[in-house]
Amino acid sequence: MSWFRTVVIKSFTKHSCPSKFTSFPRTPFVSLMNFSSEPTHEAKKSSEIVQYSGLGPTRPNEKPRVVVLGSGWAGCRLMKGLDTDVYDVVCVSPRNHMVFTPLLASTCVGTLEFRSVAEPIGRIQPSISTAPGSYFFLANCKGIDTEEHVVHCETMTDGADNLPPWSFKISYDKLVIASGAEASTFGINGVKEHAIFLREVSHAQEIRRKLLLNLMLSDVPGISEEEKKRLLHCVVIGGGPTGVEFSGELSDFIIKDVHERYSHVKDYINVTLIEANEILSSFDVRLRQYAMRQLTKSGVRLVRGVVKDVQSHKIILDDGSEVPYGLLVWSTGVGPSPFIRSLEFPKSPGGRVGIDEWLRVPSVEDVFAIGDCGGFLESTGKQVLPALAQVAERQGKYLSGLLNRIGKDGRGRANSLGGIDLGDPFVYKHLGSMATVGRYKALVDLRQSQDTKGLALAGFASWFIWRSAYLTRVISWRNRFYVAVNWATTFVFGRDISRI
Amino acid sequence: MSWFRTVVIKSFTKHSCPSKFTSFPRTPFVSLMNFSSEPTHEAKKSSEIVQYSGLGPTRPNEKPRVVVLGSGWAGCRLMKGLDTDVYDVVCVSPRNHMVFTPLLASTCVGTLEFRSVAEPIGRIQPSISTAPGSYFFLANCKGIDTEEHVVHCETMTDGADNLPPWSFKISYDKLVIASGAEASTFGINGVKEHAIFLREVSHAQEIRRKLLLNLMLSDVPGISEEEKKRLLHCVVIGGGPTGVEFSGELSDFIIKDVHERYSHVKDYINVTLIEANEILSSFDVRLRQYAMRQLTKSGVRLVRGVVKDVQSHKIILDDGSEVPYGLLVWSTGVGPSPFIRSLEFPKSPGGRVGIDEWLRVPSVEDVFAIGDCGGFLESTGKQVLPALAQVAERQGKYLSGLLNRIGKDGRGRANSLGGIDLGDPFVYKHLGSMATVGRYKALVDLRQSQDTKGLALAGFASWFIWRSAYLTRVISWRNRFYVAVNWATTFVFGRDISRI
Repeated sequence: MSWFRTVVIKSFTKHSCPSKFTSFPRTPFVSLMNFSSEPTHEAKKSSEIVQYSGLGPTRPNEKPRVVVLGSGWAGCRLMKGLDTDVYDVVCVSPRNHMVFTPLLASTCVGTLEFRSVAEPIGRIQPSISTAPGSYFFLANCKGIDTEEHVVHCETMTDGADNLPPWSFKISYDKLVIASGAEASTFGINGVKEHAIFLREVSHAQEIRRKLLLNLMLSDVPGISEEEKKRLLHCVVIGGGPTGVEFSGELSDFIIKDVHERYSHVKDYINVTLIEANEILSSFDVRLRQYAMRQLTKSGVRLVRGVVKDVQSHKIILDDGSEVPYGLLVWSTGVGPSPFIRSLEFPKSPGGRVGIDEWLRVPSVEDVFAIGDCGGFLESTGKQVLPALAQVAERQGKYLSGLLNRIGKDGRGRANSLGGIDLGDPFVYKHLGSMATVGRYKALVDLRQSQDTKGLALAGFASWFIWRSAYLTRVISWRNRFYVAVNWATTFVFGRDISRI
Repeated sequence: MSWFRTVVIKSFTKHSCPSKFTSFPRTPFVSLMNFSSEPTHEAKKSSEIVQYSGLGPTRPNEKPRVVVLGSGWAGCRLMKGLDTDVYDVVCVSPRNHMVFTPLLASTCVGTLEFRSVAEPIGRIQPSISTAPGSYFFLANCKGIDTEEHVVHCETMTDGADNLPPWSFKISYDKLVIASGAEASTFGINGVKEHAIFLREVSHAQEIRRKLLLNLMLSDVPGISEEEKKRLLHCVVIGGGPTGVEFSGELSDFIIKDVHERYSHVKDYINVTLIEANEILSSFDVRLRQYAMRQLTKSGVRLVRGVVKDVQSHKIILDDGSEVPYGLLVWSTGVGPSPFIRSLEFPKSPGGRVGIDEWLRVPSVEDVFAIGDCGGFLESTGKQVLPALAQVAERQGKYLSGLLNRIGKDGRGRANSLGGIDLGDPFVYKHLGSMATVGRYKALVDLRQSQDTKGLALAGFASWFIWRSAYLTRVISWRNRFYVAVNWATTFVFGRDISRI
């Protein structure tokens, strides 16, 4: 046969790709954290990982390099704004996409599809996948050597069978820490094991799969009435916007889809929202009351309580009462991640990386921190800003402008900022808050702070504003199109219940 | 606060849902396989699983019950056609949706989205989620007691933390075995551990995640040239329509999307298709040659070889050559599943459940087998039909008509078929085969068999026929809409590369 040939793949022709990767000498280095410069035992065993290498310092004929840690609102907005004629951009993140978090709760029940709220970084900053000196590395940062202007990273190889993670380092001219925060558990036992957070697409996928599984299992013969009620009891901890929006979506799903498609078990499913203080505490008091009425009307039980312990089938509140659950979603705000805690920079109140008014880490050269992981130092006299997408995005935008100016001034290289005039400091102006509560109702609070007056709306008009506002904020045209299409098909055909 | 109340969830009000579930006495029963009627140790421990219960025999005031094992082409087409005024329908399957298999290969690279090819059973036969006597049970069938007209099942609780699977039984009036086949591995070592099949949505998801992971990892510093080539070597075993279509999709993805979005590593990625005999052996010889030319032009290496051993990073062919791979997709046809092998019915050549011309299992009463798990007994003088969606769908349609007639004759109950005239036997007429080969090209072979003459086309027109034909075959309007939308956005925006 003409097509038949034996290919011994080992003898692939060599590609003539000029490699930019430099191997570093394995000398000891000053690090801000305990970081082993030696490859791990597994990595050593594996002959494929040749050496502890990485991207060396930029040479005079190359553009200066901005290294961005993280791919959330702050990091992505920054990368979008960076002038790639001036800089090479290297992003280090354990995920290759940004999550459009305000719409994430809608994906848990299928109102929107997962991919409609995930934006690949290459779509936000195309240079990262095409420019010769710009890269995206699927990895976690493990340590920062500010003396040497180097970050130490380890690949994220989850899912790659038998491929041990390996370490590498990247020299930076400017470093932006935008690695976000992590969900708070307040040290409560069992939260990480049994509850699902709602911060990543994988969390939403897990919630959706579990909800559908419980709906199906509860219909199988041999299950007791009590167990059926437990399986179909969805408990949400935390009455912030995420918890409230998820509860609203869930009750929409129950009212419309469960009643139609799981009619055998529809009378067993319940949603309980547990909050220690006020729900939606940052909103105007009338909006809060409206939200409570709406949620209650949709069948969500609002319970005031403090969780003491989380077990595999039930949670224990501080008054001793036990709440059996089949699905437990945990959304009680965020705190500093282990990586941020490990950094020995001066911290802001609350343990974030301390920054000045220009978002710099003032104790070292060329390091900035934005988003949920950075907070104003007490010495600035400014309050730490809330962990909101709005804040992160504004900071990313501000810093991209600042870095572009610096780069165009010829100060893009490492250690060349001395004495520069950075211009206006970053000032945050709150544009307002929004939250849906289900059944085509939402809250829109346009006050700049809790003490000022301003427009505060609730109802269908607000819901329309909510949808329109977020639709225009979705980053790519592709996803904007898909969000609109998903909303339309959910309205016409209902939510998809395939458990895939 | 008005909304504040303590809810001790344990004291839920009792719902007055009349339960149809009967508990069976735990008497020994005659079974076709070793099946423990005792709950497992774990199930016993768990107080929630009250007893070994299930759906008892139908009573005179109830409709007769058709139990369908499986939710593939055969089972779903059958359920769609069953007259639910005549029968109650109970489906037992480990997945709650049907996969539109001809388009599954397209989802591995994002040409289509996963949910566009998954059809929830409730959308195919709405009664199953609403009628009081019809059910879908997420479970595997473990044994059939044809004497007692009972199937023994075990729930599929994967993903339900700490919830052990439990057993239950269902009495049937008519039983349809449509549980499909399983991928053949020919006893080759390591296939199940290291290769990914391409039969379920979860397989396509795994392929997509792994492909994107390998693309990203191969760009990280510290990886050797050899390892980079290995990671980006996609090997497909099996040159049937699935293997060829997947190879074509993969090369489309590489030519269009990898070159644009992973330009650092685009010269390292390769696709190899390994087949022991001819690719697309059921197609006209000119079409086969066309397919080979097209695939080669798209950069797919066609290798004739027999796999001897599969290891974690390489496969060994029978001539001793080693083929390193980063992604291994296995698509070499199907054979009887362990469940089918465990059934002690007379078998057809090839080990399927033996059936007569009316798709009955003739040795017992009221049992039928359709799709890939059933095959004509040698005594019928007919050949076992190929494992094709087309065959399965036609059999499902035929059997739904037959069962509806039987039911309307008042013979729907167990053991009431004696002496009935079943009418015309099932006759299969092949309508032809289609396969895409990538780059807007496809093959359409409308010959009824390999020896007859008929229309055989290849090229863009065939591709257009291929797309149009499958678009009309997609079962629901929702998915038809989404398939069209996915195709359009892939054309305009390219494929989505978020690794979620």
